Amino acid sequence: MDFVRTTTETGGARFVPPEDRIATFDQDGTLWVEHPVYSQLIYCLDRVPVLAKEKPKLKNVEPFKTVLSDDLEAIAKLPLPELLKIVAATLTGMTTEQFQAEVKKWLATAKDHRWKRPYTELTYQPMQEVLKYLRANGYKTYIVTGGGQDFVRVYSEEVYGIPPEQVVGSAGAVKYGYNKDGKPILTKEPKLLLNDNDAGKPEGIHLMIGRRPYAAFGNSTGDRQMLEYTKAGDSARLSMLVLHDDAEREYAYGPAQGLPNTKVGTFTQALYDEAKKDGWIVISMKNDWKRIFAFEN
Amino acid sequence: MDFVRTTTETGGARFVPPEDRIATFDQDGTLWVEHPVYSQLIYCLDRVPVLAKEKPKLKNVEPFKTVLSDDLEAIAKLPLPELLKIVAATLTGMTTEQFQAEVKKWLATAKDHRWKRPYTELTYQPMQEVLKYLRANGYKTYIVTGGGQDFVRVYSEEVYGIPPEQVVGSAGAVKYGYNKDGKPILTKEPKLLLNDNDAGKPEGIHLMIGRRPYAAFGNSTGDRQMLEYTKAGDSARLSMLVLHDDAEREYAYGPAQGLPNTKVGTFTQALYDEAKKDGWIVISMKNDWKRIFAFEN
Repeated sequence: MDFVRTTTETGGARFVPPEDRIATFDQDGTLWVEHPVYSQLIYCLDRVPVLAKEKPKLKNVEPFKTVLSDDLEAIAKLPLPELLKIVAATLTGMTTEQFQAEVKKWLATAKDHRWKRPYTELTYQPMQEVLKYLRANGYKTYIVTGGGQDFVRVYSEEVYGIPPEQVVGSAGAVKYGYNKDGKPILTKEPKLLLNDNDAGKPEGIHLMIGRRPYAAFGNSTGDRQMLEYTKAGDSARLSMLVLHDDAEREYAYGPAQGLPNTKVGTFTQALYDEAKKDGWIVISMKNDWKRIFAFEN
Repeated sequence: MDFVRTTTETGGARFVPPEDRIATFDQDGTLWVEHPVYSQLIYCLDRVPVLAKEKPKLKNVEPFKTVLSDDLEAIAKLPLPELLKIVAATLTGMTTEQFQAEVKKWLATAKDHRWKRPYTELTYQPMQEVLKYLRANGYKTYIVTGGGQDFVRVYSEEVYGIPPEQVVGSAGAVKYGYNKDGKPILTKEPKLLLNDNDAGKPEGIHLMIGRRPYAAFGNSTGDRQMLEYTKAGDSARLSMLVLHDDAEREYAYGPAQGLPNTKVGTFTQALYDEAKKDGWIVISMKNDWKRIFAFEN
């Protein structure tokens, strides 16, 4: 609230004109739950049976065979290159409109295993309040996510009040062409244009927004460069990190607090040290948040 | 005006909700003068002497030697691959902030040879009116240009009232790093991420905006796919082409009207035929525009 006051007080020394008020938010682990695994990966795994119906040959090809086996232990052990085969097979090869329709359909029915609720309900109430508070003060809010840009854009407006054009994410190429009726279509290609993680976050911000944010929010080492870049701007800048330290109400992970390490949302001691040194604010989910989800009483 | 009325009339059958009101504009030849050559290319040529001061070796290397010779005829004859060497040398290798400062400085002093005015004054008054009219009716206006995204973003707010994040253009990669004081910087790299011409326009619109425009404006074959893509959407859609047929007040070019051919802003007979067939509106600068520039009386 100090930051917002300082940057919006007319006549103040650190006043920021409305057009420059840009705030960027990581999604997974910052705006919604990312454990035990990113929702988008569950989408990809859930798509495999559909894919196997369309292309029966896949049933005997790894890693699709393992995913279809429902052997959860084997699925959990799939190495990254194998997972990327599933990602490529389920996120590309269709038109952008087909993809949007498929994601919408999935979101309407898929449920998280722990809370038995749609993934879109697993957003953090305090972060929703931050989004609204910043927008009420003239800030334009963006998602800057390592997740798929096309995926997050399907629900960003409904879930976060953030329109598709304000979602920056890992982005694949699309190819312009025509369907059999001669109608223009865009087909999703297995070619990565922007890997929106780590250094890719400030690079993606430059590509898609073109200005340095005044405020940035993240929760893992993948957000480090975005928070550095934001904080390095002149005048007042705000960088905040969400620390997952509440095993009871959500999850606890990250070696910075002596918590278990994780590949999903790593929060290292080095990140914690940089935050303290550079004046970023670390949010403790356990101590700072009264309520985590809107559906809690 | 029919299109705007139709899409904004509450309760109408073809009403478009405000968040979907996207209008895209090509820049060179659609919003400002592109002849005899794109302003950005003049910027690049003007930068060569500065570059040669920093790197004296360039004085004896082609094509820099020719550009420094001031032999206009020889410069005009430089083939595209040679021009691209100049483009790469003058648009990359510096930080994004250095580049912005250089472009700003150039825009403040450089003048067009015919009108002896800053390039930023050579925008078409009727198109400025279209931009304002659409915005007044809830449309979000975007530039979708084959020109450099970073270049156009320097002046888009001041010249067109379009903020940097609403400029989609040909975009090079930037690389995140640190300067000698450890401060984060983004360096412009000689690697093209998006060639925002032809099919690259709808592809770029998907990447940067994520929705199909309801209105699109262009003036050359490089805009064809953007106009097709726009017009192919459901409900009311508007595609317009500016035809340069006024040699007296501006320039006349394009074989569609029996006018001389040109590499800068080609308007072929095939484009004209597609426009007529698909219901795009062709604007005659000569017959439809009372005034071309704001500085005219």
